Amino acid sequence: MLIGKDKAFFDEESLEKYSHDETEDLHFYPEVVLKAETTEDVSQILTYCNEHLIPLTPQGARTGLSGGALPLFGGVALSMERFDKILHIDEKNGQVTVEPGVITQVLQEAVAEKGLFYPPDPASKGSCFIGGNLAENSGGPKAVKYGVTNEYVLNLEVVLASGEVIWTGANVLKNATAYNLTQLIVGSEGTLGIITKAVLKLIPLPKKDLLMLVPFNSSEKACEAVAAIFREGIVPSGLEFMERDALLWTAEFIGEGVDGIAEEVQAHLLIEVDGNNEEVLMQDCESIMNVVSRFEAGEILFADSQAQKDKLWNLRRKVGEAVKSQSIYKEEDTVVPRYELPALLKGVKEIGKRYGFHSVCYGHAGDGNLHINIIKGDLSEDDWNNKLPIAIREIFDLTVSLGGTISGEHGIGHVQKNYMDIPFSKTELRLMKSIKAIFDPNNILNPAKIFPDEL
Amino acid sequence: MLIGKDKAFFDEESLEKYSHDETEDLHFYPEVVLKAETTEDVSQILTYCNEHLIPLTPQGARTGLSGGALPLFGGVALSMERFDKILHIDEKNGQVTVEPGVITQVLQEAVAEKGLFYPPDPASKGSCFIGGNLAENSGGPKAVKYGVTNEYVLNLEVVLASGEVIWTGANVLKNATAYNLTQLIVGSEGTLGIITKAVLKLIPLPKKDLLMLVPFNSSEKACEAVAAIFREGIVPSGLEFMERDALLWTAEFIGEGVDGIAEEVQAHLLIEVDGNNEEVLMQDCESIMNVVSRFEAGEILFADSQAQKDKLWNLRRKVGEAVKSQSIYKEEDTVVPRYELPALLKGVKEIGKRYGFHSVCYGHAGDGNLHINIIKGDLSEDDWNNKLPIAIREIFDLTVSLGGTISGEHGIGHVQKNYMDIPFSKTELRLMKSIKAIFDPNNILNPAKIFPDEL
Repeated sequence: MLIGKDKAFFDEESLEKYSHDETEDLHFYPEVVLKAETTEDVSQILTYCNEHLIPLTPQGARTGLSGGALPLFGGVALSMERFDKILHIDEKNGQVTVEPGVITQVLQEAVAEKGLFYPPDPASKGSCFIGGNLAENSGGPKAVKYGVTNEYVLNLEVVLASGEVIWTGANVLKNATAYNLTQLIVGSEGTLGIITKAVLKLIPLPKKDLLMLVPFNSSEKACEAVAAIFREGIVPSGLEFMERDALLWTAEFIGEGVDGIAEEVQAHLLIEVDGNNEEVLMQDCESIMNVVSRFEAGEILFADSQAQKDKLWNLRRKVGEAVKSQSIYKEEDTVVPRYELPALLKGVKEIGKRYGFHSVCYGHAGDGNLHINIIKGDLSEDDWNNKLPIAIREIFDLTVSLGGTISGEHGIGHVQKNYMDIPFSKTELRLMKSIKAIFDPNNILNPAKIFPDEL
Repeated sequence: MLIGKDKAFFDEESLEKYSHDETEDLHFYPEVVLKAETTEDVSQILTYCNEHLIPLTPQGARTGLSGGALPLFGGVALSMERFDKILHIDEKNGQVTVEPGVITQVLQEAVAEKGLFYPPDPASKGSCFIGGNLAENSGGPKAVKYGVTNEYVLNLEVVLASGEVIWTGANVLKNATAYNLTQLIVGSEGTLGIITKAVLKLIPLPKKDLLMLVPFNSSEKACEAVAAIFREGIVPSGLEFMERDALLWTAEFIGEGVDGIAEEVQAHLLIEVDGNNEEVLMQDCESIMNVVSRFEAGEILFADSQAQKDKLWNLRRKVGEAVKSQSIYKEEDTVVPRYELPALLKGVKEIGKRYGFHSVCYGHAGDGNLHINIIKGDLSEDDWNNKLPIAIREIFDLTVSLGGTISGEHGIGHVQKNYMDIPFSKTELRLMKSIKAIFDPNNILNPAKIFPDEL
């Protein structure tokens, strides 16, 4: 037998559950769900699928927003949920060895108890898995100061399509030993191999933080203030942008009002600074206040308790869900050099006007990462399915022309793959597909992801 | 004509000059030196070499320590020295676009004038090129706080063996758009393509720093103190380890005494903290002093002027040259998780005793990166050529068994390639060689580097 009965699921409920992630309303049903428990399990499953040419889609917590975990061709859904152990917190070296099915927040809390910090924290941190974060190179609000997932990965155990098991690197902070297989696997969305263990870097946990919510009468002014804060020499630990609707819809969604959003307020910046010295943080806040006042900021709300901080962050984290609850929508995960954010935002609105769609924009402004939620609202099915892709193409063309690219932290997966000709030339795509063919010659691993249908 | 006469050099002096880098006393003569000036030049040269199967070795400032720039098979030495322009310092976005032949220190000083910081700074920063730093994924003393070269690379223009020109990414701080070609090129030592432009990330320049030199009566105690400093929650901007001989030889080499090195002192740590707030830095120094006192540190020397800081850093930077001036030597660039440094050092000395060689050790202790300089001294030619490689193999075996790898920042190049079976399995090496074959199917780009002769 390939794998024990207690690890294989064919029932309708399971097939339904593992047919979707958080991407729009898409469903693709696997033929079987396998819940591997060991590297050896994964190796045996891959060896079998590779021999029998069975498509296999690795799945984490299925919180992804680009359809990377959708079993497009049926076959095996390989759930990594039973790889849920934190194997070793190495306090002495500031490292942790972890299985891919550990929930990001669980890992963060476990290392925080030792005074250590694992910064990457997608909005879904309470449910998403480290493995998914690795597969998509996830970011989150802390990325602006601390960097995204790939900056914390030292070494990965990976099972190849052939069933062979490799380690990609070493447990070290610097490495000039041949090609960087580690960084090739991170962000490869399960198309090159299955991650079964990860050695991650940890840093000292900052002891204090301050948080403020800054209203602006113009979204573009808010975006301009973002670049200006950095030019002042300040690196906030969070610098989030939310359009008016994003905040209002979310406040309604979670059933908590936000006091005093004046009618003229068009956008907010949520700004956090962290460190160990409260006085320094206060100075940073003062500098930030001086900067934002140059961009016509309104009255600033300082979070004066942990409860208020939690409330404000919760507002930000729930924007995606709140928008989803209002309407069918498509989310684009554009990223540009941060100073180009106002130009991107202005362009998106202008394209929206021409194509007749409303969008709610928010995201990690400090990184130039703007989430554009395109609301279906009253759009006809025809416009939604046929005209909107042309509009999205215009948005991505603009993004790339500003020096940016089409995904900052969600990945390409299924729903963005047919836009990949925008950021990449044929030569570049050909190189990548050739790399895929080395790792997975029979194309069994998450097939038809990342690359355009026609290539 | 393939390239203008003013760009091609066949004279003996040129062939001699471009036959070596800083690796031991190795010389391999090219048949021609080409000094390309444009991406188009590079593309034409590669197209020609690829068609005619001519080996081509890219060269930067030839300051490398692993023989990566040696033209092992003659052919073309492609010097990138005329790619010496800083194309655009983008203050608004904190980015710089630079050609690969720019000297690292020149870049650092140019961006510092704008209040910006490019941290990676190998010991050779006054002469090495950014292109070489990219090829070898260089580090330097700042890496312990700020990371190595690869953490500052956003996007690269690369000419492939075919002559095709690609960009590897986008000019953004986060990117989840398909495979990370950028990180595949960084550290690939000129074997996958020729970098012709680089977009690098800049950060705000810290305004202040403090520096201290801490003596220890035991090298191992010094190494243990390193890990303890981090466990205190402090991230120094420099944490360098020097054995007694490293400091003494260097002081003699540069003709400056170091006051008061007591006879019992076996090692020093050079510790720097940086930031914008002097008070905080003073507090950090106090915490560090408390930590090192637990490891029997001697009397600490605080640098009380910029001149003294420069003197101390110069001492550290010149260690390599000083050792070279004393004897023929081989330098190994081992790296381990930082807490394992004492075990590595102890093992190296024990292996030295068994094989009868003396070593001088120093390096970036904060990163666990130990440079082991094996002194030829009185060793016979036979021992040097035949017995020493077995001893080095033991050192690398130990390094890998401690969770480390065989190069932290110098690269594999020519001199370490036959040890690559130690950190990597056959499967891992096969994957890498297959990637090489995609980028360079005719194996013209820096052939016989990185990979073992027998594979």
